[in-house]
Amino acid sequence: MSRPQQLISSLNCARLGRTIRQVLASGPVHEPIQVHGWVKSIRLQKRVAFAMVHDGTTSKSLQVVFQNPVHAKVLTNGASVRLRGVLVPSPGSGQENELLADSVDVLGECDPETYPIQKQALTTDYLRDHAHLRVRTDVQGAVLRLRDAVMGSFREFFRENDFTYAHTPIITANDTEGAGETFRVVPAPSGRASYAPITQDTEFFRKPSYLTVSSQLHLEALSNGVARVWTLSPCFRAERSQTSRHLAEFWMLEAEWTFVYSVEDICSVVEASIKHVLRLDSADRSLLQKDAGTSRALMAASSEVSWARITYTDAIHELQKSGVHFQYPPTWGAALQSEHERWLAESFARGPIFVTDYPSAIKPFYMRQNDDGKTVACFDLLVPHVGELVGGSLREERQTLLEAAIKRHGLDDGVYQWYLDLRKFGGAPHGGYGMGFERLISWLTGIENVRECIPMPRWSGRMLL
Amino acid sequence: MSRPQQLISSLNCARLGRTIRQVLASGPVHEPIQVHGWVKSIRLQKRVAFAMVHDGTTSKSLQVVFQNPVHAKVLTNGASVRLRGVLVPSPGSGQENELLADSVDVLGECDPETYPIQKQALTTDYLRDHAHLRVRTDVQGAVLRLRDAVMGSFREFFRENDFTYAHTPIITANDTEGAGETFRVVPAPSGRASYAPITQDTEFFRKPSYLTVSSQLHLEALSNGVARVWTLSPCFRAERSQTSRHLAEFWMLEAEWTFVYSVEDICSVVEASIKHVLRLDSADRSLLQKDAGTSRALMAASSEVSWARITYTDAIHELQKSGVHFQYPPTWGAALQSEHERWLAESFARGPIFVTDYPSAIKPFYMRQNDDGKTVACFDLLVPHVGELVGGSLREERQTLLEAAIKRHGLDDGVYQWYLDLRKFGGAPHGGYGMGFERLISWLTGIENVRECIPMPRWSGRMLL
Repeated sequence: MSRPQQLISSLNCARLGRTIRQVLASGPVHEPIQVHGWVKSIRLQKRVAFAMVHDGTTSKSLQVVFQNPVHAKVLTNGASVRLRGVLVPSPGSGQENELLADSVDVLGECDPETYPIQKQALTTDYLRDHAHLRVRTDVQGAVLRLRDAVMGSFREFFRENDFTYAHTPIITANDTEGAGETFRVVPAPSGRASYAPITQDTEFFRKPSYLTVSSQLHLEALSNGVARVWTLSPCFRAERSQTSRHLAEFWMLEAEWTFVYSVEDICSVVEASIKHVLRLDSADRSLLQKDAGTSRALMAASSEVSWARITYTDAIHELQKSGVHFQYPPTWGAALQSEHERWLAESFARGPIFVTDYPSAIKPFYMRQNDDGKTVACFDLLVPHVGELVGGSLREERQTLLEAAIKRHGLDDGVYQWYLDLRKFGGAPHGGYGMGFERLISWLTGIENVRECIPMPRWSGRMLL
Repeated sequence: MSRPQQLISSLNCARLGRTIRQVLASGPVHEPIQVHGWVKSIRLQKRVAFAMVHDGTTSKSLQVVFQNPVHAKVLTNGASVRLRGVLVPSPGSGQENELLADSVDVLGECDPETYPIQKQALTTDYLRDHAHLRVRTDVQGAVLRLRDAVMGSFREFFRENDFTYAHTPIITANDTEGAGETFRVVPAPSGRASYAPITQDTEFFRKPSYLTVSSQLHLEALSNGVARVWTLSPCFRAERSQTSRHLAEFWMLEAEWTFVYSVEDICSVVEASIKHVLRLDSADRSLLQKDAGTSRALMAASSEVSWARITYTDAIHELQKSGVHFQYPPTWGAALQSEHERWLAESFARGPIFVTDYPSAIKPFYMRQNDDGKTVACFDLLVPHVGELVGGSLREERQTLLEAAIKRHGLDDGVYQWYLDLRKFGGAPHGGYGMGFERLISWLTGIENVRECIPMPRWSGRMLL
């Protein structure tokens, strides 16, 4: 998004000094400038030395030229430095400008013998074990910047469409799905691990409290007054499963809006918002997308051509007649397995596909009943390699049908009294969706495991820092 | 911020329909349009009826004119409606255009006898008890939109200055402050309240886990590779105190960056970012700022004039010679009390004031030791009526001094090994700050209690929804 020059200059805080991104974006500067960063590599020659220096504000490094190679002899990979010099056009290929340094100060040394982030390729497991340092790698720096850029793209989309960003509660009395494994929250007044029993008396909020598994119900309450809301909020599942698509703590983008009458319209919003993100021009994304096939597939998904849509019932038919031998035979009434979802996206649609109108028995209580009495007005968006990326629905806005669903699902209707109130007082047709943010990053980059799509991942048995 | 027309049209998702903000921003439209919203008030006359309808996308309501008053007879306050009609210039004052309705459908009725959000003034306590409905009030709708706009302003500021937004962990093994009351996180496999004892065996992460009290340490790790980072993240304190400035769950804006050498420079960034927010032109803010004195004070704070700065040592002198009888006599070496902070901002500076260089003994271990050996390179920003709004510091980047501080504070240095690593391998001078987001909203609006500055507040003994 281009911005008026005046705004840029008024917001730029001179006290912060120049970043390497700013230096590389500027033309040659003949007055001496000061630049900071970490040494990425050094090349010593007889009469001249070169260093590549980065500061993480861009995926690129600044080439620094020392006309006196002695200056570079104190440098090691990973050391932090302050440089002074002039920015001149580079005679070499690979960069437009380079810094002709006349002084260098090492601010923080880095012992090349013990530095954990060595130059040779490090395994994914090794980097997970060094969660506090892995942001120094090209890949993790790019993931961090890409998450920010993707969030910014969604923000643009939602703002243009009058959605308000909402901070929904993390600690909650509700368990949105009515099932699933949650975390309990209890006070630890000593600030230390306590193995004392939790009792009614120790409840900080005078009742049991949980970490949220979804912001949906809270967004529904807010969208009942501010008609369009969204959030990107942490969610928590105490699941022991160790797959490449699950984290105990993850970020979910959720949107909810009132005055929508069909699943088709919700799917259109999902598609428009993700296509806006897919069109994001990002050097970090190019750096991460190592596989040409991934890039081509994402390019195709970002085109004007609408994504495939199919009902669950038709999807079961297609799976049954595919001739593929699935471990779980596809059967109407049963959940789609990963193998089914992947076949639908990768072989059948060869791209993103919305599957709509699942059987009500396998979906949560809040989804809106279809007229057939058997299915609900919902969808999952399946994408190649990742599987389920988004799930959403119309929400049941008819009070009596919602009450019946709460009973049918064996839920405590006392807990949901406030949720019923939303229907009682000026409720209206509404719906929304949730998207796993790390899964989206995984799809956008081709990074296989969501543990590499978040700076500091948590899963069963693993929480560093 | 103005945006190119093309971008707007490409992002606007036609399937979403028109919001009331969009309708009010457009000129008269002669083709019939469809609008949705909730009825705010009705005025029935003999030959004509009026209704004000809002949808929360703006603080304003749309005036709807029924040339056949019978159409309006079915309406009640709070009911949700779908209207069709043409948008014409309004002969009345108070609005440029109005909707000449030729049809209205009630989507969700609202019984005027039992509707909890009656038109007469409702008490703060009453609205807190109706957390699921209070967003329907003008004030809470405006607070929600204002939070979004303020977050957008910070995003602009940080983006212009090459800060990357980072999602830091919520569940953590660390207790940043080395003190304070935290929440423990334990799995609840049944999804229900369990009063079974927590044992080593039940730890989901194989070790004790807590809800974060600050993202600072994690941001420090990230800023050691991506030099400038920020976040707006939920934080948690299990404090029993019931003040107007504390919540058990609150949002904290934190920024952290490498290559900064002085507290003065950190203060300048804080001041520049908040001034950018203070200059935000927002109808919601005007609606909330009921007090002319508040508006004038905030206008003054947003001017080019630099905010006051004073050292802690000088502040103690000023407090001592003020002649004011404080409940706690100001003494060098003791923390500033609320009464001291308010006097400094409200009477001494008559505006925001940075107090810098507090005694090391009353500040956390990670703050950078000054050369005097007695104070640390830190600051608090105090503002009128709110008190402490921001706290920040240079962080101790010298490994041996940091190790000594960890010992001095009686902390377990095994837990901080990764934090020491950040100094060992190319560490550099760095610093940052944290700002309570609800306190900022309180200051910007004059809303006295932070419980009204967040949609669904949690405090000791209280967690609705």
